[in-house]
Amino acid sequence: MIKVVILGGGNVAYHLTSNLLENNTVEVVQVYNRNLEHIKHLANKISITNDIKQLKTADIYIISVSDNAISELSSQLNFPDKLVVHTSGSIAMNDLKSNSVKGVLYPLQTFSKERKVDFYSVPLCLEAENEKAFQLLKSLAESISKNSYRINSEQRKSMHVAAVFVNNFVNHLYYQAQKICEENNVPFEVLQALIDETSAKIKTLPPKEAQTGPAKRNDSVTIEKHLKMLPPDQQKIYILLTNSISNIYGEKL
Amino acid sequence: MIKVVILGGGNVAYHLTSNLLENNTVEVVQVYNRNLEHIKHLANKISITNDIKQLKTADIYIISVSDNAISELSSQLNFPDKLVVHTSGSIAMNDLKSNSVKGVLYPLQTFSKERKVDFYSVPLCLEAENEKAFQLLKSLAESISKNSYRINSEQRKSMHVAAVFVNNFVNHLYYQAQKICEENNVPFEVLQALIDETSAKIKTLPPKEAQTGPAKRNDSVTIEKHLKMLPPDQQKIYILLTNSISNIYGEKL
Repeated sequence: MIKVVILGGGNVAYHLTSNLLENNTVEVVQVYNRNLEHIKHLANKISITNDIKQLKTADIYIISVSDNAISELSSQLNFPDKLVVHTSGSIAMNDLKSNSVKGVLYPLQTFSKERKVDFYSVPLCLEAENEKAFQLLKSLAESISKNSYRINSEQRKSMHVAAVFVNNFVNHLYYQAQKICEENNVPFEVLQALIDETSAKIKTLPPKEAQTGPAKRNDSVTIEKHLKMLPPDQQKIYILLTNSISNIYGEKL
Repeated sequence: MIKVVILGGGNVAYHLTSNLLENNTVEVVQVYNRNLEHIKHLANKISITNDIKQLKTADIYIISVSDNAISELSSQLNFPDKLVVHTSGSIAMNDLKSNSVKGVLYPLQTFSKERKVDFYSVPLCLEAENEKAFQLLKSLAESISKNSYRINSEQRKSMHVAAVFVNNFVNHLYYQAQKICEENNVPFEVLQALIDETSAKIKTLPPKEAQTGPAKRNDSVTIEKHLKMLPPDQQKIYILLTNSISNIYGEKL
């Protein structure tokens, strides 16, 4: 059984810990967090600590804290023959400063504590500094998810940027649409089928072929009507994305 | 049985016609299109025509042509006691210029000929100029979809703008992400689980609460790293949407 210590109490650590606690092939021996408050709900299940000097022995130490704390926290670990990984999309493996074997276990998903995630469907991007460590990390990954990928630090950084586009920015467009609906007394739920189809459509059509709408059609009458209905901040988004779409389809507005 | 004539051969007309032909409570008596080529695949199933003077008698005439052709085409119809509807999100009901009873049947979905759509899940936004016509339109709508809504012309226009945000613009962000992946030799499929979860998440959390990522966290280190990796056109999109997100969460960058 793979023994794991998890360091962190944020969204990723929360979901990873919940998942690993239910997993029969992995033993979570301890969870560390600087602030015990955030992990006290685990106290009746496993050992918790806020003292880095009290860390127990494990095969893998998973550092799942905010990006700017990874280097500092890792430098305090002293487990020369163990594997220490972080879970960040945008931090290089070599930013880990422990005297351990290094690796990365990046779950490419959006996590909020309020929402349960089917971890088995979460793609895990894996990296390790040697083959033995990679195989250990892969065993762990395969016990918690059906999709794992070998991705190096450079590739992972670009995946993280791409993830910002398809998640952070997309969600922000949902927010803008919800505001438009609210201000015009129409139920936002009416849009859900369209939202679902938009995300499903690109499983069978590349986004370039899936594109529809006034910007693609160069339908300047509709575009002008839309702009008149929007406040300045939404106009800016509308204009930039409309121009960006029409550039692709070769029709300048 | 409700008798229907469909006018048009574009994406919406194509899917609407396919659906209505399979429907036992509706009889498609004819399909009209200016260019017969686009509807010739229907010739062995029903009457087709490109001559507006040869239109047959029906209860409802559904005009499903490009927005800028609706007024002109409707002005050529002469069925004073029949219902004439269009299927556009951005055109007012009164832009119909037939001497008929007027209405709108707007399917709020993205249609591409290459992809089959489950029409029964497509929300239909309905409007009619009198109650009797509305009830007839509602009967038609309920026979083809489980979700229909009474939406007036003003509301429909704002829904259409909102739809541009959640569909056209979102799909464009998928396109940008795919480009980033291609240029960095990482498979775009790895992002699909994140794309699916992003669209599903807002069924249980409002977009404002579902938001995550560097812009929300005011993580300027990650934002700077991302910007360095992007070409100028993607930088513009990244900066505008990042600023727009951070404005909401009260943290100016």
